[in-house]
Amino acid sequence: MSADLAVQMEGVRSRRPLVHHITNYVTVNDCANICICAWGSPVMTDAEDDVRDMTPVANAVVLNMGTLNPRTVEAMVLAGKVAKKNGVPVVFDPVGAGATPYRNEVAARIISEVGPDVIKGNAGEISFLAGFQGLVRGVDSAGSSEDMATLVLELSKKFGCIVAATGTIDYVADGKDAYVLCNGHSMQGFVSGTGCMLSSVVGTYVGANGVVVDAVVAAISAFNIAAEKAAEGCDGPGSFKVALFDSLFKLRPEDLVSAKVSKA
Amino acid sequence: MSADLAVQMEGVRSRRPLVHHITNYVTVNDCANICICAWGSPVMTDAEDDVRDMTPVANAVVLNMGTLNPRTVEAMVLAGKVAKKNGVPVVFDPVGAGATPYRNEVAARIISEVGPDVIKGNAGEISFLAGFQGLVRGVDSAGSSEDMATLVLELSKKFGCIVAATGTIDYVADGKDAYVLCNGHSMQGFVSGTGCMLSSVVGTYVGANGVVVDAVVAAISAFNIAAEKAAEGCDGPGSFKVALFDSLFKLRPEDLVSAKVSKA
Amino acid sequence: MSADLAVQMEGVRSRRPLVHHITNYVTVNDCANICICAWGSPVMTDAEDDVRDMTPVANAVVLNMGTLNPRTVEAMVLAGKVAKKNGVPVVFDPVGAGATPYRNEVAARIISEVGPDVIKGNAGEISFLAGFQGLVRGVDSAGSSEDMATLVLELSKKFGCIVAATGTIDYVADGKDAYVLCNGHSMQGFVSGTGCMLSSVVGTYVGANGVVVDAVVAAISAFNIAAEKAAEGCDGPGSFKVALFDSLFKLRPEDLVSAKVSKA
Repeated sequence: MSADLAVQMEGVRSRRPLVHHITNYVTVNDCANICICAWGSPVMTDAEDDVRDMTPVANAVVLNMGTLNPRTVEAMVLAGKVAKKNGVPVVFDPVGAGATPYRNEVAARIISEVGPDVIKGNAGEISFLAGFQGLVRGVDSAGSSEDMATLVLELSKKFGCIVAATGTIDYVADGKDAYVLCNGHSMQGFVSGTGCMLSSVVGTYVGANGVVVDAVVAAISAFNIAAEKAAEGCDGPGSFKVALFDSLFKLRPEDLVSAKVSKA
Repeated sequence: MSADLAVQMEGVRSRRPLVHHITNYVTVNDCANICICAWGSPVMTDAEDDVRDMTPVANAVVLNMGTLNPRTVEAMVLAGKVAKKNGVPVVFDPVGAGATPYRNEVAARIISEVGPDVIKGNAGEISFLAGFQGLVRGVDSAGSSEDMATLVLELSKKFGCIVAATGTIDYVADGKDAYVLCNGHSMQGFVSGTGCMLSSVVGTYVGANGVVVDAVVAAISAFNIAAEKAAEGCDGPGSFKVALFDSLFKLRPEDLVSAKVSKA
Repeated sequence: MSADLAVQMEGVRSRRPLVHHITNYVTVNDCANICICAWGSPVMTDAEDDVRDMTPVANAVVLNMGTLNPRTVEAMVLAGKVAKKNGVPVVFDPVGAGATPYRNEVAARIISEVGPDVIKGNAGEISFLAGFQGLVRGVDSAGSSEDMATLVLELSKKFGCIVAATGTIDYVADGKDAYVLCNGHSMQGFVSGTGCMLSSVVGTYVGANGVVVDAVVAAISAFNIAAEKAAEGCDGPGSFKVALFDSLFKLRPEDLVSAKVSKA
């Protein structure tokens, strides 16, 4: 499969997609920079008056509910609707779904009113969406499930979109097949926002290549292989994060030969 | 005292407290990451609908008024009240108190309506709260006072909480005793948000260990010892900040033997 | 000219100006830190009640419209007006001007209602303001023009302020003369917010030295020479950004001998 993934990365590099983010104020800078390092072009804006004109010219929209307030929730719903109307792929990261009723309500609203093309969360969030009450503690936690491959596949069928559940092992499904991805490094768990960053990379890949499962698998694999390389010789979470940007920026399509991807 | 401090650090490592922050948008990412590096689990959310459900399950709440607006001020007051009602410790960082009437008003309101368990500011902010009009220029400045130990002790009695005033020398008092802490490095003054980060570390320590003066002293000592280590071989504020995350992450309880703490 | 520029840097170092920012939530932390590394003192606040009292005591105000919403737009207009009334220089960065009608409207409003002392944007934004419809794609892009020197000069006459258009080559004009600046490194294009950071450095320099073209030229030259040094031995955008802070912090007035500045 690594040849297919390399094609996805080449697509990003040749197209340099414009990725419109409405994301949280905690990790927004990291999302912008990782998007650039993935060879995308980030734009962050959440005023409704701006969204109406920015979203249609984007190649993908990333909606991340890490921090919410009434104004930005409306902006996310608007951006999602405008994107769908204009054929712009929508990636949704339901950060903290399962943690509070408000988050659950917003996640449900975005899923029903927008209909994202890709839903990417950690295992706890995706489990919650699937109706399994995940143990969500904070927003950096992950549940786990031996049945996660089945769960993402079922969820992708139910929602009619690509679903990805991330953790030590990542699972991706597109309504037909489920994939198991085994790259990454434990150091990712010690940096705030690695999940948010990955959503931005996913947005970059579907922005360049369209809503295909290979794009999502390639994005996750590229990010996680970059993390493996960044962990070599790093001295802790601070230097790991710096090296992660460098490492993704330097990753080449041929490096995706290291991708550990299998069908479930 | 270093044995007592080591116990505090061990408490954080074994409990990994969930620390709910309502903080400024300037240094929020650094607060999240330093909380992780202190072995806490950060969550940042400020929508009132979210606060109601997130705050009660947190182990500590950090309210930081670095950037304010009417919406987030209400969220801070609400989070503080919900925390107190649920026995969750509240750490308050009155950033910029003394600089403008609006900041003074918000600080006074949080102190009177919430009743924080720990108030941690720089010397200028704490001096202002004490009624000494500190020379507060910007939010990274510090006043100084030979009487600072007395001042924090008096203030801790008046407010019935732990008070910490940070600067080249740090002072902590709990209504009975005042402590003088002499760790740290001048490079901390060249990175925006080291004070905010320290408040997050204090929140992490009281979240794990309860509202005890040893927890606050241990948090400040750990952060400042980490800063001393980070300054070794750094090349300026950029590399110092990266090393600070690494250094705190790698700090072990036995490293607190370097703590320079004495009773005033 | 490098002797004149060195004088500007010495002015910043001796005066350590307080720079009030109302800027976007994407790169605000980088703006704060680069201001410190340029030897300024940053303060970020956007509540109208706070702006009224903070702006008059600042040495410069930086208004950056990277992210906008109705509340912060009003805060920017207010801060600009208060600054002008109090003789505080205003630097305006019209991020994304040309990209959406909302951004164009806000930029026009700030220019007409505030009357900034310095307008600094990338070539695409400045071209748009000049009535040439720049190809603005995202907010990190730049148009290009052989006539850019003429354009900034004309624009500086029209608006009665200093105008700077940045890119691979930077152009600065003050209504009388136009300057061409040729320092910098391609790596700057791979880090989100280098343009925002530069606006903060410009604010720091005019805050210390007043609204003179030498201050703006010195700020841009210092930042770009620091970037050249940072690029040496960096391993990608992550390590480049870290080194950029270190490098600007360590830059000395005599290093401005490397400035490549000529009259157009």
